[in-house]
Amino acid sequence: MTVPVAYAGVDIGGTTTQVALVSPELSIMDRLVLATPADRGGTAMVGAVLDGIRRLLSGTRVRLLGVGVGAAGVVDAATGTVLVASDSFVDWSGFGVTAAIETDLGVPAFLDNDVNAFLRGEVSGGAVAGERHVLGLMLGTGVGGALLLDGTLYAGPHGAAGEIGHVPGFGDLPCSCGGRGHLETLAAGRSIAARYADRTGRSGTARDVAHAAERGDPDALAVLRTAGAAVARGILITAGVIDVTTVVIGGGVTGAWSLLEPSIRAALAAEPPVSGRTPRVVPAALGADAVTIGAAARARTELAAVPSCA
Amino acid sequence: MTVPVAYAGVDIGGTTTQVALVSPELSIMDRLVLATPADRGGTAMVGAVLDGIRRLLSGTRVRLLGVGVGAAGVVDAATGTVLVASDSFVDWSGFGVTAAIETDLGVPAFLDNDVNAFLRGEVSGGAVAGERHVLGLMLGTGVGGALLLDGTLYAGPHGAAGEIGHVPGFGDLPCSCGGRGHLETLAAGRSIAARYADRTGRSGTARDVAHAAERGDPDALAVLRTAGAAVARGILITAGVIDVTTVVIGGGVTGAWSLLEPSIRAALAAEPPVSGRTPRVVPAALGADAVTIGAAARARTELAAVPSCA
Repeated sequence: MTVPVAYAGVDIGGTTTQVALVSPELSIMDRLVLATPADRGGTAMVGAVLDGIRRLLSGTRVRLLGVGVGAAGVVDAATGTVLVASDSFVDWSGFGVTAAIETDLGVPAFLDNDVNAFLRGEVSGGAVAGERHVLGLMLGTGVGGALLLDGTLYAGPHGAAGEIGHVPGFGDLPCSCGGRGHLETLAAGRSIAARYADRTGRSGTARDVAHAAERGDPDALAVLRTAGAAVARGILITAGVIDVTTVVIGGGVTGAWSLLEPSIRAALAAEPPVSGRTPRVVPAALGADAVTIGAAARARTELAAVPSCA
Repeated sequence: MTVPVAYAGVDIGGTTTQVALVSPELSIMDRLVLATPADRGGTAMVGAVLDGIRRLLSGTRVRLLGVGVGAAGVVDAATGTVLVASDSFVDWSGFGVTAAIETDLGVPAFLDNDVNAFLRGEVSGGAVAGERHVLGLMLGTGVGGALLLDGTLYAGPHGAAGEIGHVPGFGDLPCSCGGRGHLETLAAGRSIAARYADRTGRSGTARDVAHAAERGDPDALAVLRTAGAAVARGILITAGVIDVTTVVIGGGVTGAWSLLEPSIRAALAAEPPVSGRTPRVVPAALGADAVTIGAAARARTELAAVPSCA
């Protein structure tokens, strides 16, 4: 009788942390969603992850092969260390995530930026399975991007490749990063809410704007049309610079996909990229599981590349 | 007594074709500059190249190891075929450049886009020797770009990677490619001339604009300042999308480098890229020889990768 094996996939977000047991075929066997103790520091955040993994394994015969973690911010995927995190994470910049996990659980661990993990998930078994030249775009609180070049995640020498959310060329509004005129100022969730407030004086969330647009509110429709056109411009820029064939779009804002999609497609149709080949654009398929599955996929890939000692 | 060996490096431009014998250490041993018979078709253009190589070899004991060609337009570097060429080249799209050369000379031949060859030249022994993450930007009649990622030229699945000259985000002027608001509308030689004519009603070349700027003409200075700021934006976009560390700028417009450089540096200093690391920006060092040397370097690299039958 064979012992079942699994990877742990972990998605550490600003509010919640998802921990899952993921099969070698990358299906989720079991999962937990926990509050992220972001205000209590790296040791507490990783402690919550370790507790979650132990709870999922408890009472099962599953043997853990490795752990993959996707985390917001800039990370060093080679050393498993967080490089830059937002202010809401206390004592997280510089924290050695994989070292802490490996010491505690005795299995190899791997760290990715959450957007890279999202793209890895969608490529491994989601909306762009098997594709080789892909931009992954996450429209959430902010706008994140990741690149798959010729089948391999490409992070660049500073871990910043794919950051189409923070390049100029999208007007002149101030961005959360300190820059101006970035895609994030038009297409992130908080920007959709802010642009609606600019027009109407009414505050609310991006979801409120989407609901208003569904009811025919012309200001809400205009804000989402501008967001879609800006996403299309980001796609055209990325296709021009790095010649991707495919774009997969995820994150909370894609809850309003039926409202965004027409303006993305209209803007792309109006302006072909320099290659003459308009990229295929698809919504993400794995929903809230993309990061956990992608993080587990990283562990699977890394562990397949070395001789097994089991 | 050893027989001297060489590669032929070829730069096929719209007006002139440069053919050079290049040593294994990538120094130019001898060169010829010929008129490009662009209006007489691919057979005539390659015929001129072959005549040039034979003239350079004639009376020497040099043994030719291979031929590298850099040509304007979109090329398939794998098959050595021109894919898309401008209208001024008759019967050039679809022409099998390397097949024609190999049949005639009996040595291996390789074809690159001229901007890729330019970047390969500057990386092999020019301004960015030994660098691994580089944008090569050619400000000529148009604006071309090429990318070196982790030490390797990256062309992308459609051969269009690095084409920062033709992505949106640079205003709204019509571009030679049919698009609008591309970097080329502000920073190419013919655009610098056109933007000066827009402001003053006076026609002339980009060189005339540079001379006027040297004499303190405020319109000429403003046009070059705008061109420099646009180049900086192109650099920031490329650094954001693909995280290059270094940019090498060549092409005829860099004749006005002392006028362009301050506005490029000022705009880069005002707006750091998302990685926080402003790319190093340097002018090209190999001048008119960059493409021929880069084309020869391609041949050297390709032939070093296979067992020699000599």
